[in-house]
Amino acid sequence: MRLIVQKYGGTSVANAERLAAVAERIARKRQEGFRIAAVVSARGDMTDELIRLAHEITDRPPRREMDMLLATGEQISVALLAMALDRMGVPAISLTGAQGGIRTDQIHTKARIRAVETERLRRELEADKVAIVAGFQGINEVEDITTLGRGGSDTTAVALAAALGAEVCEIFTDVDGVYTADPRIVPDARLLSRISYAEMLEMASLGAAVLQPRAVEVAAQHGVRIEVRSSFSHNPGTVVEDEEESVEQDIVVVGVTHDQNVARVIVLDVPDQPGVAYKLFSALAEEGINVDVIAQTNKSVGVTDVIFSVSRDDRAAAVEIVEVVAQELGAAGVRADESVAKVSIVGAGMVSNPGVAARMFGALAREEINIQVISTSEIKVSCLIEADQVERAVRSIHEEFRLGEGAGG
Amino acid sequence: MRLIVQKYGGTSVANAERLAAVAERIARKRQEGFRIAAVVSARGDMTDELIRLAHEITDRPPRREMDMLLATGEQISVALLAMALDRMGVPAISLTGAQGGIRTDQIHTKARIRAVETERLRRELEADKVAIVAGFQGINEVEDITTLGRGGSDTTAVALAAALGAEVCEIFTDVDGVYTADPRIVPDARLLSRISYAEMLEMASLGAAVLQPRAVEVAAQHGVRIEVRSSFSHNPGTVVEDEEESVEQDIVVVGVTHDQNVARVIVLDVPDQPGVAYKLFSALAEEGINVDVIAQTNKSVGVTDVIFSVSRDDRAAAVEIVEVVAQELGAAGVRADESVAKVSIVGAGMVSNPGVAARMFGALAREEINIQVISTSEIKVSCLIEADQVERAVRSIHEEFRLGEGAGG
Repeated sequence: MRLIVQKYGGTSVANAERLAAVAERIARKRQEGFRIAAVVSARGDMTDELIRLAHEITDRPPRREMDMLLATGEQISVALLAMALDRMGVPAISLTGAQGGIRTDQIHTKARIRAVETERLRRELEADKVAIVAGFQGINEVEDITTLGRGGSDTTAVALAAALGAEVCEIFTDVDGVYTADPRIVPDARLLSRISYAEMLEMASLGAAVLQPRAVEVAAQHGVRIEVRSSFSHNPGTVVEDEEESVEQDIVVVGVTHDQNVARVIVLDVPDQPGVAYKLFSALAEEGINVDVIAQTNKSVGVTDVIFSVSRDDRAAAVEIVEVVAQELGAAGVRADESVAKVSIVGAGMVSNPGVAARMFGALAREEINIQVISTSEIKVSCLIEADQVERAVRSIHEEFRLGEGAGG
Repeated sequence: MRLIVQKYGGTSVANAERLAAVAERIARKRQEGFRIAAVVSARGDMTDELIRLAHEITDRPPRREMDMLLATGEQISVALLAMALDRMGVPAISLTGAQGGIRTDQIHTKARIRAVETERLRRELEADKVAIVAGFQGINEVEDITTLGRGGSDTTAVALAAALGAEVCEIFTDVDGVYTADPRIVPDARLLSRISYAEMLEMASLGAAVLQPRAVEVAAQHGVRIEVRSSFSHNPGTVVEDEEESVEQDIVVVGVTHDQNVARVIVLDVPDQPGVAYKLFSALAEEGINVDVIAQTNKSVGVTDVIFSVSRDDRAAAVEIVEVVAQELGAAGVRADESVAKVSIVGAGMVSNPGVAARMFGALAREEINIQVISTSEIKVSCLIEADQVERAVRSIHEEFRLGEGAGG
């Protein structure tokens, strides 16, 4: 019996009509002879609504209680989808993350899946039921509910696909797949028919909201084939899988991404001593704050400014931590703002094509866009720029690499 | 260390302000040196809202999925109350029914508590935390979520109080306690300072919505002292406990109740043979439908009408079942309507005071209210009457027994 995992995002299950459409899609796939585990997110704005409720009570809800609260969103979705399938005569059973065997670590609101205990899932699937599993949530070793962070349902789906040995993990969303750039900004952005794990991971990490980066990591680890598709059409979408040398080998850059969810933190006048960066960034890492691009600018002898970016959610916590370290180091102070955005190019072919970064900088220069900080890896180049220049930046870079024509180099 | 269980109903936690008031009440009790397990219901109209969502999908949601859906209401409440306590600096932890150790049988939407596994609860209480447990829900032996039926949070609270050996189970609600009649109908209805388990059980079963009957049963079995109190005041309320001969021994009738949630089912022209009643009512019992008052009226030789009442929720299911049996028996047909209501008097003293029922019938006769069916037990008399006469009936009976003056006989 062939087995697949499908994941449906919040907009795909936002109301009764859309739920019925999802149920129909599942029913059709089942008639084709597949066993199906479906992972579902909270409906529409449910998660935001729950966060609002919590903030009516307190500015700083305990993270454990936040998870207890947020997990209800997905629980409602799975129950309703099971009802929609039942109504169509399709045997189905809803499962919470805990019932679906999703075991995580202890880090509330940002938990990681440690194991998937598939016993119950397999039993339900073998009884020929569609198993509908609540995304985004799991249970830790003291049986407390945890959540996996925004977009965590993707990771639930990929982890289930790996544990069950599913032949594919279909991620149904409100866009057609992965594009060379955000089509709302670049009208001739092209849908990618395939992309490698490494490229997808960078794209997702650098602002392409279509997949949670952690989901791509897990997929790469276990060789899970992902298909990103629209839940509103039957178009094929984008396949994420291992690189094959033969396919599109002359493509240097696969896409341009941008990310507005960026805050800039500047530590002023840090004495230029060994160990300064270690002290700063290890303190941030200990609190689980991801630091993105980092730069250091020497102002005068022995004194430097340290600039780095974090996600806006982490800004307040980052400043709090950095202020303590800055004082210890004898720095002049800490400043933070959200006037910046990040624009990036991604492509596995970059490593063997020198000059790619220079072409990106040239495209920005032609638009008179100033680059504040640059960060590179083997398969990406990121630039921090002024937030209000980001759309021009994306369009200019997309054109430079002729991504709309499928050139990419 | 003294331990109490408190239960807060849906109106008591309906918004942020009320949640804060509940948190404050808990905090004060804790400062008095009590350990507290608090049981909470779904907020305000949450349960109705979830039922509405389900009915958008299907007329007949599977009961298991209904439980999965409805359980989220209480889960939201416990998380928010834990946040409200945390904000006040009171250590607290929310627990789902499953985490709270509430083990039930398999009957979805009407489950019964089979056991309370208190290990985790005791651990949290011993760590000096307020344990906040989701009411109304539990988990069955295959680890599926079950719910206990409307008002089930009361039963959760009483079962917890029994299992933990709490000195009292305080039920906080939106009224001051148990009255001699519904104060909205009888302005001089009197608040009862105490009532026995047996009387409370009848009152609750016969329409006094202040406590779930099953909760009273469990309290009686385990000798749990219940206090029904208002969450909007600090008034003492009504104590439900074992009868003591010394207290109010000359009270014959403690209260008048009425119940509009009644449907009448009539099986027409049933051949008058042995076993007819058995066939009808065993078929209903098998489907878990509670039949209330029953009457049989001989119309002509060998033919009888069987009349009985069920709750309105059960009307459709009851008619479906009875129609099958009626056909087997050769009856003429089945009719059902909701034009009736039930009015009852309750009092443990009745059994040794003949003539109490006659006084009730007299009070109804003076108002020219026709009695359709009568049902009696040792401590209650119930009459089925026309629905639109119910308020007059309650006032007349309340006056007859001078309940407003505390006479009751």
